[in-house]
Amino acid sequence: MSDRPRIYLDHAATSWPKQASVLDAVDAYARNVGASAGRGAYRSSMQASTHIQSARRSLAKLLNVPSSDCVSLHTSGTAALNAVIFGLVSPGDHVVTTATDHNSVLRPLQHLCETAGVELSIAECDAHGQVSAGAVLDLVRKQTRMVILSHASNVTGAVQPIETIGQTLAETSTLFVVDAAQTLGHLPIDVMDVQCDALASPGHKAIGGPLGTGLLYLASDLHAAIRPTIFGGTGSHSESLEMPSRYPDKLEAGNLNVPAIAGLAVAAQSTLESDQQQQRSRLSALSQLLHEGISSDGISSAGMVTVHSIAGPLPVASLSIDGLPASDVAAILDAEFGIETRAGFHCAAKIQDFLGNPTGGTLRISASSHTPDGEIEAATKAIREIAGT
Amino acid sequence: MSDRPRIYLDHAATSWPKQASVLDAVDAYARNVGASAGRGAYRSSMQASTHIQSARRSLAKLLNVPSSDCVSLHTSGTAALNAVIFGLVSPGDHVVTTATDHNSVLRPLQHLCETAGVELSIAECDAHGQVSAGAVLDLVRKQTRMVILSHASNVTGAVQPIETIGQTLAETSTLFVVDAAQTLGHLPIDVMDVQCDALASPGHKAIGGPLGTGLLYLASDLHAAIRPTIFGGTGSHSESLEMPSRYPDKLEAGNLNVPAIAGLAVAAQSTLESDQQQQRSRLSALSQLLHEGISSDGISSAGMVTVHSIAGPLPVASLSIDGLPASDVAAILDAEFGIETRAGFHCAAKIQDFLGNPTGGTLRISASSHTPDGEIEAATKAIREIAGT
Repeated sequence: MSDRPRIYLDHAATSWPKQASVLDAVDAYARNVGASAGRGAYRSSMQASTHIQSARRSLAKLLNVPSSDCVSLHTSGTAALNAVIFGLVSPGDHVVTTATDHNSVLRPLQHLCETAGVELSIAECDAHGQVSAGAVLDLVRKQTRMVILSHASNVTGAVQPIETIGQTLAETSTLFVVDAAQTLGHLPIDVMDVQCDALASPGHKAIGGPLGTGLLYLASDLHAAIRPTIFGGTGSHSESLEMPSRYPDKLEAGNLNVPAIAGLAVAAQSTLESDQQQQRSRLSALSQLLHEGISSDGISSAGMVTVHSIAGPLPVASLSIDGLPASDVAAILDAEFGIETRAGFHCAAKIQDFLGNPTGGTLRISASSHTPDGEIEAATKAIREIAGT
Repeated sequence: MSDRPRIYLDHAATSWPKQASVLDAVDAYARNVGASAGRGAYRSSMQASTHIQSARRSLAKLLNVPSSDCVSLHTSGTAALNAVIFGLVSPGDHVVTTATDHNSVLRPLQHLCETAGVELSIAECDAHGQVSAGAVLDLVRKQTRMVILSHASNVTGAVQPIETIGQTLAETSTLFVVDAAQTLGHLPIDVMDVQCDALASPGHKAIGGPLGTGLLYLASDLHAAIRPTIFGGTGSHSESLEMPSRYPDKLEAGNLNVPAIAGLAVAAQSTLESDQQQQRSRLSALSQLLHEGISSDGISSAGMVTVHSIAGPLPVASLSIDGLPASDVAAILDAEFGIETRAGFHCAAKIQDFLGNPTGGTLRISASSHTPDGEIEAATKAIREIAGT
């Protein structure tokens, strides 16, 4: 570590620090209770069920979902996305996604293209990772099974028009699935308003839950149709060789990570109780500050820095510096300034083409609503110094 | 909770309490480091890689595996079993398993039977859940793709002859996969001696790691053949729509649960340093004490209790009481005696037929090498009291 205080600007990867109450809940469960879920007839194991139900309930409220039975718990956002994609897309189906999507969407779909004759159409984005509703909707056909896209790009932070897309698709038989990895907890998401059929998210990003958590909202009319993709013990119908037919059980084989879920329950409740309007203003202001700091004349005139993102609802910036690979920039930021960022392709295979394929990818700076102005100013000043050398 | 001290005898579900050093490692990572793995160019995120490598290394040593690159990390034993079954069994293959296996083996295989024309042969067990090597090997044909079985029954604790099976199959092209959920950490397992091609286990049972962890050992000659079943970001080859071809990366899509893995690394190292011979004697002695306590004349003569297990290497007993469902016995043990056990079918669909299908399944008492004699004696005394009423 640098002697300077640690400046964590990698919130798009995972949030840190977590609230003490979240980590306390994880630790208290593991230390004092410990029992695995739903499979014992003793009171400690029933405490596991209480935490699990509490997490489902708070997450359902956060999404404005009518029932906590519409939320399944997973081990990551990736696991939740795999569950909904492999559970609902069938051989020969047509699926639409976008060039800004993460590999946790693109790779499962690519696999289905190669092995199950699925046809994939990919909507293009602009040079800032922005996708228009029209670009997505133009690719939808009468028989399209699913439109799936990230609510916001994990590379540039561009927020996509999911409400427009969802409301248009609601009139059709095409399923609409939202990957809210970059937004849930940062921005209010009302599933009833978006009219999506499913929404997946990790629990450990803007919601502030522990690593090892993910969630899926699934509309009740799809509970019967979704096929499990992980098979094992569920603590229910143990005498059957088939997975239970009931959602969410059918997607939750194996021991649930109860300590992490206990933490997620606290984090989701805390997010629910936060002032979302105030938070939204704060995130916008930070995005503005961040982009002003790296787009100032000092940099532009030197022609050294290309900023791939624009100021918007999320405090995420993506940039590249001529002649200096992003991983070198990140290493200097860490070693010289104590500033922690991400560099590279950010597990998003398609977007780089639209950003002009900067060598070695981009440097991403990502904040949270708790990030003080001073940390953003330190980061942008450091970028200017590095670009100036 | 009862006012009596808590007597935890549900170790076959998950071990508790965990060592303080294990939980301290989880908490310290989450609180002080927090960064997600392998995808940053800053030192905190490199600490994630250090913990991950440390876990792989200790687990490899524990199994006597030549290289830590032969160990992939998963979110549960179930996830590891799904990865090896769906990754290596192809449509039309013949697979052999046993009636004692857990639903995390039986349900994935049943799914492949229904959807991919896989043919499954199931070796029978005796009334104690014991399977003979002959019963398994007799079902193997020249073209059998895989033999997969639990090292020990999670219902009765019967330990199966994996060395004999493994050494016989080593001469053939049939893959041998061991589910070590009930044994790894309790009994020494030398993969070189067992000659298995793969071994899966949760990290949170006898190894003593946190919930949310699992592992797979995979022989290096299968690294190219195994197909990923979860797709997403791996922090490597991000510019490709394909999963990386390298094991273990190809099976580890999505954010790894680094805090839990940091705890698993400590637990695996601690298991490695324990006196395995002494522990083995202790587990045997506890099994003896447990079975003597519930098989005493007092019970047998009353004819009320059927003990389905026999004393052996693992301190696990399975019993049923005439006219009293197992879940009621467990509830009384908890409420009246503060003793925590499991009741029901234990996520093992096939074994009940061989135990005589006791109504509502069986009551399972399971200890660890740290369980004091007094707790076993309290449990068996309580069972005798309940059976006597």
